[in-house]
Amino acid sequence: MKNITQQLLGLVSDLFGAPDGAYNIREDGACAGRQSTDQIEITPKMGKPGIDILIKPGTQGENVYIPACVTHSDVDDLVYNDFYVGENADVTIIAGCGVHTEGEESSQHNGIHRFFLQKGAHVRYVEKHIGIGEGTGKRIINPQTYIEIAEGGSLEMDTVQMKGVDSTRRVTRGKLAAGSRLLIKEKIMTHGDQTAETDFEVELDGDGSGVDLISRSVAKGRSHQVFRSKIYGNCACTGHSECDAIIMDHGVVSAIPELTANHVDAALIHEAAIGKIAGEQITKLMTLGLTEEEAEAKIIEGFLK
Amino acid sequence: MKNITQQLLGLVSDLFGAPDGAYNIREDGACAGRQSTDQIEITPKMGKPGIDILIKPGTQGENVYIPACVTHSDVDDLVYNDFYVGENADVTIIAGCGVHTEGEESSQHNGIHRFFLQKGAHVRYVEKHIGIGEGTGKRIINPQTYIEIAEGGSLEMDTVQMKGVDSTRRVTRGKLAAGSRLLIKEKIMTHGDQTAETDFEVELDGDGSGVDLISRSVAKGRSHQVFRSKIYGNCACTGHSECDAIIMDHGVVSAIPELTANHVDAALIHEAAIGKIAGEQITKLMTLGLTEEEAEAKIIEGFLK
Repeated sequence: MKNITQQLLGLVSDLFGAPDGAYNIREDGACAGRQSTDQIEITPKMGKPGIDILIKPGTQGENVYIPACVTHSDVDDLVYNDFYVGENADVTIIAGCGVHTEGEESSQHNGIHRFFLQKGAHVRYVEKHIGIGEGTGKRIINPQTYIEIAEGGSLEMDTVQMKGVDSTRRVTRGKLAAGSRLLIKEKIMTHGDQTAETDFEVELDGDGSGVDLISRSVAKGRSHQVFRSKIYGNCACTGHSECDAIIMDHGVVSAIPELTANHVDAALIHEAAIGKIAGEQITKLMTLGLTEEEAEAKIIEGFLK
Repeated sequence: MKNITQQLLGLVSDLFGAPDGAYNIREDGACAGRQSTDQIEITPKMGKPGIDILIKPGTQGENVYIPACVTHSDVDDLVYNDFYVGENADVTIIAGCGVHTEGEESSQHNGIHRFFLQKGAHVRYVEKHIGIGEGTGKRIINPQTYIEIAEGGSLEMDTVQMKGVDSTRRVTRGKLAAGSRLLIKEKIMTHGDQTAETDFEVELDGDGSGVDLISRSVAKGRSHQVFRSKIYGNCACTGHSECDAIIMDHGVVSAIPELTANHVDAALIHEAAIGKIAGEQITKLMTLGLTEEEAEAKIIEGFLK
C-alpha cells in the first residue's frame, strides 16, 4: 500500500493499518486489501468493478471498512458497491474517499453504493471525503447512494466533505417501507472555486416511515453550492428537511427543497436559512480575546460539529 | 352592466354599484365602466386590450378599482393593465376577478398586471379570485403580476382564491431596488379536481431591500396545488418565504421553494409545512360541542383568515 494511501486512510476513515473485522481497501481502482469475517462476506463483482458486501441476518456490532483512495493525477475511478444487510443485523459501515493529485491532470472517484436493508436491520453509514496534494489537477468525488429499507429497518448516514474537493455531485435516493427510518446528516465546506451539489430524493412508501435530512454547509471564497432535496410522502409518514448554510467572501449557495404530500396523513416540513455569520457573534468572541479570523473559525467549527 | 357582473363585483371587490374615485370595470373583455380622477388617470391601451393607470406623484389615500368579470361560458379574455405609480404616492388598488360559466364550454381570464413604483411609492394591492355558476365548463383564472419597485418604495399584495376556480396558474415576478419592500400574502383553497400553481420569483437587487412571501393553502377533494418560489439575494438584503398547507381527503400539495444567496450580506430563510389538521385540534373543538365537520371548517377558517 502506498504512503499516500496510508495518509488518506487516516484522514477519511481514521484507519492506521488494517482494521479488525471486514474491510476492502480500494487504491487507484484496484484492491489493496480485503478481508471477510464469519458474518460479513465481501466478494468482488463479476463483469464490473466493485464488491458485494453480504451481512448475515442478526450480525451485531461489527464494522465494515470500505475506503477508496486515488493517489495521483489522471485517475478516473468508478466502482459499484452493494450492501445486502440481513434481518435484524446492526452494523457500522465506514466508507470515505480521498483523492490526491500532484500533477496537472484531474482525478476522480465515482462511488455508486447501494444499500438493501432487510426487516429490522440497522446501519450506521459514515463517509468522509477529502482532497489533498499540490497538483493543479482537479480532485473530483461523485458519490451516489441508493438506500432501500424494509419494514422496521433504519439507516443513519453521516457524510462529511471538509476540504480539497474541487467538484462534487452527491446523489442520494431513498425508498422506505413501513416503520422504517432514514436519517441523513450532511456537512460540507467549500472554498476557492469549488462546486458542490447535493441531490436527495426520498420516497416514503410505508405507513409510519420517516426521514430527516439535515444539511449544514459553509461556502467560502468563490465557491458555489446547490442543495436539492425532494421528499414524497405517499402514506402516513413524516418527512423533515433542513438546510443551514453560511456564506463567506463571494460564496454562493442555493437551497431548493421540494415537499410533496401525496397522502392526507403525510406530514412534511422543511426549513432553510442562508446567511453570513452574525456580526454580534464575532464581536462577542473578539471581546474574549480572539482575532476576527479566529472568531470566524471557531463559529464555523461549532456550526459543522 | 349584467346582473351576474354585479354579483361577481360584490364577491371579488366588495363593490355594490360604481365606486367613488378611479375605476375600470371589465365585463367579458369589454369596458363596462371607467372613471379617472384628478390624481389617477385611466386610459385604454392602443393596439392591445387593457389600460394604463397613471397615478400622480404624491397621491394620497385614493383607491383604484379594476375588477374583471366573465359572465358566461366560452369566453377567452386577455388583458394588459399597467400601473405607473408616481413618487411618494400611497394608494390602494383593488383588482379581483370572477368567472361564471353556465354551459359546457370553459371560460378564462388572463390578467397581466405590471406595477412600476417610483421612489417612495407605496401600494396596497388586493385581489380576490372566484368562480361561480352551474355550468360544467371550467372556470380558469391565470393572473400574472410584474412588480418593479424603486428606492424606498413598497408594495403589499393580498391575493385570495377561495372557491370555484378550476384551474389557475399564478405568476408573480418582483424586482426590488435599494430600501424597497415587497410583502405578498397568498391564500388559496382548492376542492374537487381543481389545480392551482403558484410561481413567485423575486430579485433583491438593492441594498436594504426585503421580501416576504407568505402562502397559506388548503387542498380538499382530489385537488392539486404546487407552490414554487425563488428568491435571489443579490445584495445586502433579506428574503423570507413561508408555505403552510393543509391537505384533506385526497388533496395533493407540493412546495418547491428556492433560495439563492449571491451576496455575502444576503440573509434568506424559508419554511414549509404540509399536513392534515391535527387530530387533537378537532377533538378539542368537538368537546366544545361542534361536529367534526364544523370543527374542521372552523380550523380552516382560522388558518386562512
